[in-house]
Amino acid sequence: MQAVEQRQHLNEQIERITPLDEGYYRRMELQLDGLTKPVGALGRMETLVMQLAGIQATMRVQTKPRVSIIMCADNGVVEEGVSSCPQEVTKTVTHNFTRGITAMNQLSTFAGAAMHVVDVGVKDCPHIPGIHTCKVREGTANMVHSPAMTTSDVLQAIQVGIDQVSALAAEGYCLFGTGEMGIGNTTTSAAMTAVLLDLPVEEVTGRGAGALSDVYTQKVAAIKKALAHNQPDKDDPIDVLAKVGGLDIAGLVGVYLGCAIHKRMVVVDGFISATSALLAYRLCSHTKAYMVASHLSKEGGMQYVLEAIGLRAHLDLDMRLGEGSGCPVMFQLIDMACYTLLGMGTFEDAGVDKQHYEHIWK
Amino acid sequence: MQAVEQRQHLNEQIERITPLDEGYYRRMELQLDGLTKPVGALGRMETLVMQLAGIQATMRVQTKPRVSIIMCADNGVVEEGVSSCPQEVTKTVTHNFTRGITAMNQLSTFAGAAMHVVDVGVKDCPHIPGIHTCKVREGTANMVHSPAMTTSDVLQAIQVGIDQVSALAAEGYCLFGTGEMGIGNTTTSAAMTAVLLDLPVEEVTGRGAGALSDVYTQKVAAIKKALAHNQPDKDDPIDVLAKVGGLDIAGLVGVYLGCAIHKRMVVVDGFISATSALLAYRLCSHTKAYMVASHLSKEGGMQYVLEAIGLRAHLDLDMRLGEGSGCPVMFQLIDMACYTLLGMGTFEDAGVDKQHYEHIWK
Repeated sequence: MQAVEQRQHLNEQIERITPLDEGYYRRMELQLDGLTKPVGALGRMETLVMQLAGIQATMRVQTKPRVSIIMCADNGVVEEGVSSCPQEVTKTVTHNFTRGITAMNQLSTFAGAAMHVVDVGVKDCPHIPGIHTCKVREGTANMVHSPAMTTSDVLQAIQVGIDQVSALAAEGYCLFGTGEMGIGNTTTSAAMTAVLLDLPVEEVTGRGAGALSDVYTQKVAAIKKALAHNQPDKDDPIDVLAKVGGLDIAGLVGVYLGCAIHKRMVVVDGFISATSALLAYRLCSHTKAYMVASHLSKEGGMQYVLEAIGLRAHLDLDMRLGEGSGCPVMFQLIDMACYTLLGMGTFEDAGVDKQHYEHIWK
Repeated sequence: MQAVEQRQHLNEQIERITPLDEGYYRRMELQLDGLTKPVGALGRMETLVMQLAGIQATMRVQTKPRVSIIMCADNGVVEEGVSSCPQEVTKTVTHNFTRGITAMNQLSTFAGAAMHVVDVGVKDCPHIPGIHTCKVREGTANMVHSPAMTTSDVLQAIQVGIDQVSALAAEGYCLFGTGEMGIGNTTTSAAMTAVLLDLPVEEVTGRGAGALSDVYTQKVAAIKKALAHNQPDKDDPIDVLAKVGGLDIAGLVGVYLGCAIHKRMVVVDGFISATSALLAYRLCSHTKAYMVASHLSKEGGMQYVLEAIGLRAHLDLDMRLGEGSGCPVMFQLIDMACYTLLGMGTFEDAGVDKQHYEHIWK
């Protein structure tokens, strides 16, 4: 398909996105106000339940089954020495997700959440059982010398994300998380954040999973070169993605759009996931109503990105792992909010069967 | 017992408190550094596990069974119109804890945590089955006109807290939470915080569970009058407690001391719980090593108190309920940290039986 047709198809899908159901949001708010506690005293725990009611357009909100979609891809810019890890680590960790030994596996098991791992552009990576191979290309080009990819590649990767959500929503998943694996993707995220928010590169560039001083200097230099060379149009998220973005991030943009299309709550993880959320928000501002921020990561750009969308983290854990690791933690918090607020006193008065909820959240 | 003997007895107990085991803390840090993730990438999730290892002096840390101790008491200062709630609500909610209909009941059930409710001074409250009646007196006096209580009362209430921990530790509880119920106790907390941290009353006084403007004005005025009348000695936590404190807070000071004596991790809830933690810290700085902050509440003084102890909240939920509501949320997070970090890849290399942990945390 040509980029023009792809873009047309994306626009049609975006047009299906609507705001959340204000009626159910307010009805839930009224119900929570009738519980045996000072009005609003559970703060953002209450807001989470109201948001779920608005998204799912029901008072019988559900948080299970849930799944984190993990987009894996390589970034050509690692040639510039922007990461302490070799590029092969992308493939290794993608493989490790299927072996059950990563932090994300443990967190997901604890939270009773599935992991849906997608190869949207891992280099030299044959199909691995358990991985959804939807490779758009063998990683991106080095953005210091050329655009990272074509517009058509971006649109194809976004479609991969939308399609994963469509399939998983059809399977009954009602709560989504966003993860990624791609050496060099805090570099692409910082480049895009600098453009989209018009901020100095140094201000939004962090040390990723653990870059030392030399690597950090090279990272900042590479981003500046890439921006100078490509001159991305900050008002066109697709252009920014093509010139200084990544396939993993484009895939996650599709996940956010897909969750808004299918009316599913979607949890934002760290800086890369948040940058993807910002791009989705710029493509369609209604997507914000479906998003929930989990934690504030150590990356410098994170706070700016969340503020630009109008989101606020619930957890402050100094994590810098990626993989979607904040999502299962947030799933637990959302469960706890639902279980607590829908099982409290005056529940019977609200005419809802408490037993119904017991088996859903426990 | 006379106050002098009580104080002597308290000092003897405080002398038993020691720092956490640095050896196990470092050993756990080394073990976590060997896992399949960048060093330290799980941030404060890792610190929680290291702290547990240091406290429990073992690599086989445990988080269950766990219990929140909820200290309930009345405050004479409510005569000054410092709260939107009538004083009887203290008794009603204390009773409701046994009826299973409060937010704290729901949160605790979700987290698999027990609740240990103590009447340390609820007014006109006969013994209720399910409540531990350890009443020091029928609520405090109105601190605007006299000291809230005697030094002997304070020491007796602290001892109640220590004794509860001793009994529960003997039953095998390994993780503790701190809750309270007492109309007017954000007023006493603000008064003590202003004294202990030498801050303006307005700066540390919040709206409690939901005070409106008139009530807030009366609250600030009452605190100023109480401080002017009583002139508490900011270098003597017992004097501050006696003059402008509360029985619930004194009881919680005992809980923090008890947890340090018995080497149990103890979770700080909101402003009142944090003020109690600050008092315990001033009595013995080693207590800090056993504390974990859960959430940052809406009360203005909260951040100052946490900073004064050197603690930092993990959750940002705008909660203003009290009852210990942040503790079960934090219990879940601690579980998740242990489950994740002690079940990840290279676990076998560490020579620990993974199966051992599966049944502990799930």
